[in-house]
Amino acid sequence: MSRERLIYLPLGGAGEIGMNAYVYGYGAEGAERLILVDIGVAFSDMETSPGVDLIFADISWLVENKDRLEAVFITHGHEDHVGAVGHYWERLGVPVYARTFTANLARHKMADRGQPEDAVRTVSPWPEMTSAGPFSVGFLPVSHSIPESAALVIDSPAGRVIHSGDFKLDETPVVGEPFDPGLWAEVSKDGVQALICDSTNVFSQHAGRSEASVGPEIEALVSAAPNMVVATTFASNVARVKTLAEAGQRAGRSICLMGRAMRRMVEAGIATGVLSDFPKVVSPEEAAQIPRESLMLLVTGSQGERRAASAQLARGKFNGITLKEGDLFLFSSKTIPGNERGVIRIMNQFSEMGVDIVDDSAGKYHVSGHANRPDLLRVHEIVNPVMVIPNHGEHRHLREHAKLAEESGRKSIVAVNGTMLDLTGSEPSVAGYVETGRTYLDGAVQIGAMDGIVRDRIRMALNGHVIVTVILDEDDEPLGGAWCELMGLPEKGRSNAPLLDVLEEDLSQFLGRAGEKTLSNDDKLETELRRVARNSCRDEIGKKPEATVIVSRLR
Amino acid sequence: MSRERLIYLPLGGAGEIGMNAYVYGYGAEGAERLILVDIGVAFSDMETSPGVDLIFADISWLVENKDRLEAVFITHGHEDHVGAVGHYWERLGVPVYARTFTANLARHKMADRGQPEDAVRTVSPWPEMTSAGPFSVGFLPVSHSIPESAALVIDSPAGRVIHSGDFKLDETPVVGEPFDPGLWAEVSKDGVQALICDSTNVFSQHAGRSEASVGPEIEALVSAAPNMVVATTFASNVARVKTLAEAGQRAGRSICLMGRAMRRMVEAGIATGVLSDFPKVVSPEEAAQIPRESLMLLVTGSQGERRAASAQLARGKFNGITLKEGDLFLFSSKTIPGNERGVIRIMNQFSEMGVDIVDDSAGKYHVSGHANRPDLLRVHEIVNPVMVIPNHGEHRHLREHAKLAEESGRKSIVAVNGTMLDLTGSEPSVAGYVETGRTYLDGAVQIGAMDGIVRDRIRMALNGHVIVTVILDEDDEPLGGAWCELMGLPEKGRSNAPLLDVLEEDLSQFLGRAGEKTLSNDDKLETELRRVARNSCRDEIGKKPEATVIVSRLR
Repeated sequence: MSRERLIYLPLGGAGEIGMNAYVYGYGAEGAERLILVDIGVAFSDMETSPGVDLIFADISWLVENKDRLEAVFITHGHEDHVGAVGHYWERLGVPVYARTFTANLARHKMADRGQPEDAVRTVSPWPEMTSAGPFSVGFLPVSHSIPESAALVIDSPAGRVIHSGDFKLDETPVVGEPFDPGLWAEVSKDGVQALICDSTNVFSQHAGRSEASVGPEIEALVSAAPNMVVATTFASNVARVKTLAEAGQRAGRSICLMGRAMRRMVEAGIATGVLSDFPKVVSPEEAAQIPRESLMLLVTGSQGERRAASAQLARGKFNGITLKEGDLFLFSSKTIPGNERGVIRIMNQFSEMGVDIVDDSAGKYHVSGHANRPDLLRVHEIVNPVMVIPNHGEHRHLREHAKLAEESGRKSIVAVNGTMLDLTGSEPSVAGYVETGRTYLDGAVQIGAMDGIVRDRIRMALNGHVIVTVILDEDDEPLGGAWCELMGLPEKGRSNAPLLDVLEEDLSQFLGRAGEKTLSNDDKLETELRRVARNSCRDEIGKKPEATVIVSRLR
Repeated sequence: MSRERLIYLPLGGAGEIGMNAYVYGYGAEGAERLILVDIGVAFSDMETSPGVDLIFADISWLVENKDRLEAVFITHGHEDHVGAVGHYWERLGVPVYARTFTANLARHKMADRGQPEDAVRTVSPWPEMTSAGPFSVGFLPVSHSIPESAALVIDSPAGRVIHSGDFKLDETPVVGEPFDPGLWAEVSKDGVQALICDSTNVFSQHAGRSEASVGPEIEALVSAAPNMVVATTFASNVARVKTLAEAGQRAGRSICLMGRAMRRMVEAGIATGVLSDFPKVVSPEEAAQIPRESLMLLVTGSQGERRAASAQLARGKFNGITLKEGDLFLFSSKTIPGNERGVIRIMNQFSEMGVDIVDDSAGKYHVSGHANRPDLLRVHEIVNPVMVIPNHGEHRHLREHAKLAEESGRKSIVAVNGTMLDLTGSEPSVAGYVETGRTYLDGAVQIGAMDGIVRDRIRMALNGHVIVTVILDEDDEPLGGAWCELMGLPEKGRSNAPLLDVLEEDLSQFLGRAGEKTLSNDDKLETELRRVARNSCRDEIGKKPEATVIVSRLR
């Protein structure tokens, strides 16, 4: 029998920001007992995944090995860590462990997909430990931009691993537990084999700022505002939502929450006890009766999402409320790369209304939830692990984080999704590669990112679509000519005749001179008609569209 | 006869960054003689304009009034100011005036589109003035991120207007004329009626930095690099290209230009005399023979454009050169909002190769070409106009710039594309509105942004496309059932049967129960078949695709 080993296998989150899913295993090679840490989503964009609702890590490998899977542990309640739990649980069928607030959100997600809520089990933080096969796992409180985030203390016969989850070093986080260096030192004092560590902010050179630092700035801004104030942030950033609400309250304003996520998160915070003393809120109906200068709205949509409250207010009206000249709109948030266009769009719509916009460009109204470069170094030092394995980040983040660890003499390695590492020895080594990828939720269906479906949609968007139909009689003779339909193509091209007429003429001419061999062979005929249609378009309008050819035979 | 008046009408660039096109007119109402300042392009994106090659301002109003048009004046050679000249000149047919370097680029654009190069006329800078109807126009040198930028001094019987064009206040611009406050004061001393002024950087709070400040930083970086160095910037930023090349030369490296635009711009700079003492360059073939540590490539693609040299190097190879572990790639540029994803993509590709990436996040290797807030105020003061009309910017920029001007007691107004202003009196007033919009160059065809063509492409990208064909005989009886083709849709849905089969079954059932009235009416039949197909898809895959129905009749 081969030696027992400790393995680490990222399926999502290592090589990208989002979609976190990390496997740990312990046992003999190929027979390791497994746990999964986090099961998140990523979001689609027009450029690479138009029409896609959500993106998941491809967990085929895990499903193939699910007889070896013991449990899922969720570090915190952000979508990119828990968002796939309702979609994937059925294929995994093991208990899901999380702290109270996270479990509350996870159960909602299970219920939304008709999955059993009791598969989600609530655990207490460290020093409580949960057994899962050869593993014993504890939830070590860390500060982040959502309540009750946890690093995981993962013990196995091969030693202790600390999986940081998303974290920052905030000693005054407004809501939830502060970062406790003494606790981290205590947990690490008997030696840590590996620190698997958040890399997202490795390029940020200055130590991170505390959540508590934004309160006074926001309060000063809100107090000075002469008219209505509207503020947006991530709804899950319950501490920020509370800071905003308290600033409004101190300025003598009634607080109204708008957008489903905003209400759900505050409710979850109150229900689970992480949120206390939250200012009294009014309903949108009540808000409509309150003088504008005495009102503050807290709304969803900090990333410019088209259906969120902020975007709807920018287009005119939401829940009966319309913004006016001289109102103030605060982005207490950072725009995630890729979302700039959407955010800028609503900024300009507000500008057209005469609404004054304040964002975080001056660095006063937002702080990040992730550990910056000096914070990462501090954690490396406290934990003092044998090896640092960077996770959660694009390749450039992982690489930079590995270099940072190596500069202080620690062992490190860049392991992207699909790279199985052996963490057992004195340094990490590659134990193999597993096929990974992305799964798209497209309407009600899960499709593979490489299935060609989305590629075809992108091609139609870039090139347009021409449909050619031909009917052939029993003797393979065309009945009339070819008929075309256009979608996403101009009506006229260079010749100034209707493109449809030009195409149908060219295709009919082709049919007229096509031989028996071509006309009797569906594949050949389709290929030729496609070629003629696309070339005809190229000559006429300068682009080759996607082409679908339908040959019908009266047999 | 009505009084003579001076009008201003932005057709592009006022309400967006890019696509600049501004009309000035002088004369009796409705009979003003006109000039056009700049005729630029904007760039497409997947979200709003997939497959579109270029975006132009809709100049229908100008074409309708072209008998009143005297001339076009181009402030400088950036694509968003001159890019449409070759596409639109034929519809305007008037002389195009520009300074030497800009004229060189404009003539290339005319030639590319088969237009007469001699329509572009080279003019000398102020104090030379060019007559155009009631106007007399001079080119006042300003510093910007391309050589020979000019503000326009536009004189008419209603007084002097200064149209800033894109500019910054750089007294040491490396290439081209420094900002000369004395000259600006001289031009303004007899009174300026209106300053039409660049707004893009109004939210940047600190005075702009000089182009000369980046040289020493770049040189330090390049000198310390142990292996090959590759740098990218906008090719038209000839000063930066020179700075980069000189830094490489001083570090003992051979310089190689890669990418068509990079070579064309340097050639244009040398040909027109704006660029002197440019370091000797080697060809890509020669570069491949030079030791890596003695080589520096200057490449196109600072915005992550897929076909540019940088993206090709990131994918593997360009002009026979491949980057390796330990090479350095410098973005001497800023990422334009909306281009983040493309830039991040190539950063990660380089990271995977082990290439070290340096960008401007530390603010050392790039400076903006536009006037920041304090610079704008300084120009307002020097010119001391009766009114300030903000141009070139999104709505939020224009609004902020107008507020800035008003804070110092100047008259101002926000005028977006299509807003005709009367600049004649003591303050600007709205004289009317003109229909404007965007024209897309789509392959070889100009289409309207609102024609529905691109909207259909976006819908296909989001929803997929189902094609339904039905053949009816002479008695309006269906021959067989309905046939479907799918593009961009999953093969199976909830029932786990092939989606095609489910659709064809549902459609055939519908045909079986459809009455004579439906079957004999093409419109009605198409509408019904479309409805059935879309609902069937919604039930099966959870989304309603675009649907094209083709009814063929054997009559």
